[in-house]
Amino acid sequence: MSEPQTEANGRIVRSADPPNLETPFSSLDGFITPTKSFYVRTHFPVPSIDRSKWRLRVEGEVNHPFEIDYPELVRLPNQAAPVTLECAGNNRIFLEPKVKGVQWELGAVGNAEWAGVLLGALLKRAEPKRGALEVILEGADQGEIADSKAPAGQVHFARSLPLAKALENVLLAYRMNGEELLPEHGFPLRAIVPGWYAMASVKWIQRIIVIDRPFNGYYQTLDYAYWRRRGEHSELTPLGPMVLKAEIAQPANGSIVTAGSTFRIHGAAWGGKVKDVEVSFDGGDSWRRASLLDQPGETAWCRWELEWSVPSRPGEQTLMARAVGDDGRTQPMQRDRDFGTYMIHHVLPIKVQLA
Amino acid sequence: MSEPQTEANGRIVRSADPPNLETPFSSLDGFITPTKSFYVRTHFPVPSIDRSKWRLRVEGEVNHPFEIDYPELVRLPNQAAPVTLECAGNNRIFLEPKVKGVQWELGAVGNAEWAGVLLGALLKRAEPKRGALEVILEGADQGEIADSKAPAGQVHFARSLPLAKALENVLLAYRMNGEELLPEHGFPLRAIVPGWYAMASVKWIQRIIVIDRPFNGYYQTLDYAYWRRRGEHSELTPLGPMVLKAEIAQPANGSIVTAGSTFRIHGAAWGGKVKDVEVSFDGGDSWRRASLLDQPGETAWCRWELEWSVPSRPGEQTLMARAVGDDGRTQPMQRDRDFGTYMIHHVLPIKVQLA
Repeated sequence: MSEPQTEANGRIVRSADPPNLETPFSSLDGFITPTKSFYVRTHFPVPSIDRSKWRLRVEGEVNHPFEIDYPELVRLPNQAAPVTLECAGNNRIFLEPKVKGVQWELGAVGNAEWAGVLLGALLKRAEPKRGALEVILEGADQGEIADSKAPAGQVHFARSLPLAKALENVLLAYRMNGEELLPEHGFPLRAIVPGWYAMASVKWIQRIIVIDRPFNGYYQTLDYAYWRRRGEHSELTPLGPMVLKAEIAQPANGSIVTAGSTFRIHGAAWGGKVKDVEVSFDGGDSWRRASLLDQPGETAWCRWELEWSVPSRPGEQTLMARAVGDDGRTQPMQRDRDFGTYMIHHVLPIKVQLA
Repeated sequence: MSEPQTEANGRIVRSADPPNLETPFSSLDGFITPTKSFYVRTHFPVPSIDRSKWRLRVEGEVNHPFEIDYPELVRLPNQAAPVTLECAGNNRIFLEPKVKGVQWELGAVGNAEWAGVLLGALLKRAEPKRGALEVILEGADQGEIADSKAPAGQVHFARSLPLAKALENVLLAYRMNGEELLPEHGFPLRAIVPGWYAMASVKWIQRIIVIDRPFNGYYQTLDYAYWRRRGEHSELTPLGPMVLKAEIAQPANGSIVTAGSTFRIHGAAWGGKVKDVEVSFDGGDSWRRASLLDQPGETAWCRWELEWSVPSRPGEQTLMARAVGDDGRTQPMQRDRDFGTYMIHHVLPIKVQLA
């Protein structure tokens, strides 16, 4: 197997066309991921959008459908928040047996400060009718899906949110880390759905459609869904909230660590309110508590570190990290097959050579 | 390609284990398909059920869950009706390009008289709670599904019906054509859902579960579903009502017809209230009306015939039949790709050799 290519900003090219670019997680440094290093997930070519012609429509089961242009949108009250986005398929490269899909390792995740207007403010202006249940966010990106089970013809990327979530804390962001969105990150406007896997944070958003039923589009049935056990049956369920996870940035998987040295193990944890991060050097039999470097929040990651007295014997060493939530729950050691190729949150072994 | 095998009762063996057996449609004779010729569709091995131990449970979102045994069930008021069952994948062998799934030709369809109790009577006894939306019918048949996208482990065949349909005219049948059900047809009890593709007519039924939400089980999402266009998005939708279709039994596809003779073209039509059946000898440019042999109903097929003065020139001749509904609508000439590998109801060309 050949080494994956990297692009000008150092990201790993998982696919070039359309661009799927992974942040090397080993480069984790600050709380904020720089915009040019931030991972990119696309399903179709990046749409080229003329901001002066762009309109956002809010329609469907609402009393007052309307259209808004960019200048009007940015004049609305805005807010900013750091939010961690993670692709629902992050860590897929670790699955055995191998599965289809973009082979993300550790870096389909990033944390940025997003600024924009609350989706809820636009929805309240449109006034959802009684019986409104979900809100479809439709992107401008579209194409034919290379899957014989997909709908025929051109399909837009689109995902829905329960109305309650849409009214809660979802941003329609036009700034990322203090600057205008880049095309690859959703220019001119993208959703930011805090706490949810990033397929919900629809980019290049052009239409918001309120509906009175569950939305069964491609990207929440055949794609981005998992089997949820309900009673004695498993039911296909759209992916939603992230689950708790810690990742090790350093030492990097497959790297060499100086035997007998002192090494700063560090990484980040997210997917819920992190109470602790623990590291195991013995395959999960015992765990040492790491120090948290950031104030744990609900929607942004928390970096952590642990000083490690590296054994003086040479050889292979396996490291594992796990997050513990404020409810005391932690990550499983085994993979749940009903999650398919998504929500990979079991404890992953990172292997290094002591030399 | 080798010729498919036939079994002792003359049915075409599409798969032996589990049994998927097709009625040779060219043998269509009476209004009722004899039980031993009736097509068989199974997903798992035929369960072996001891009637003295069998129980049917009615539970979920009901005020009075209960269990009923076979003697009590057959003492309840019963009714009988002729109902046509068609597999949702019938005619799949005609699709181009070839698709996965059982390669049914014309005979995954049959018409039988079914007798049993109304599902609605049992539901009323259980008393669905306010908010009840659907009714899951669960079969005793189960196994692992050979699909990497399926839920892990053992899965029961199960399908849901909207509560309104379940209360309307669905039978829980224990007799077929005047005799006890055969194991391959669902002994001791199966659902008969008039007017719906036969995946809804769950066999070996053991449990009825009332739920307050749409059921997203495997057999109505990844399997037995199609893309329904709603606004500008296609949504994955469980297959339900059959669509109108006529099939030609004689002459059989690929057979030889005596040039210059008089031939009785005949077949059946179903999938709605049939007003007319028409036959074309010129690829669909013109159509001749056939005679209907049965009183058209909503839920049983209607046989038809047309006397054909066979041309005296030798060579290939293409025949087509189409049904016209009582709403004046007829079958399309082209395949709708959003139906995937199901609901194959476009007009099919039957080719014969005049000699």
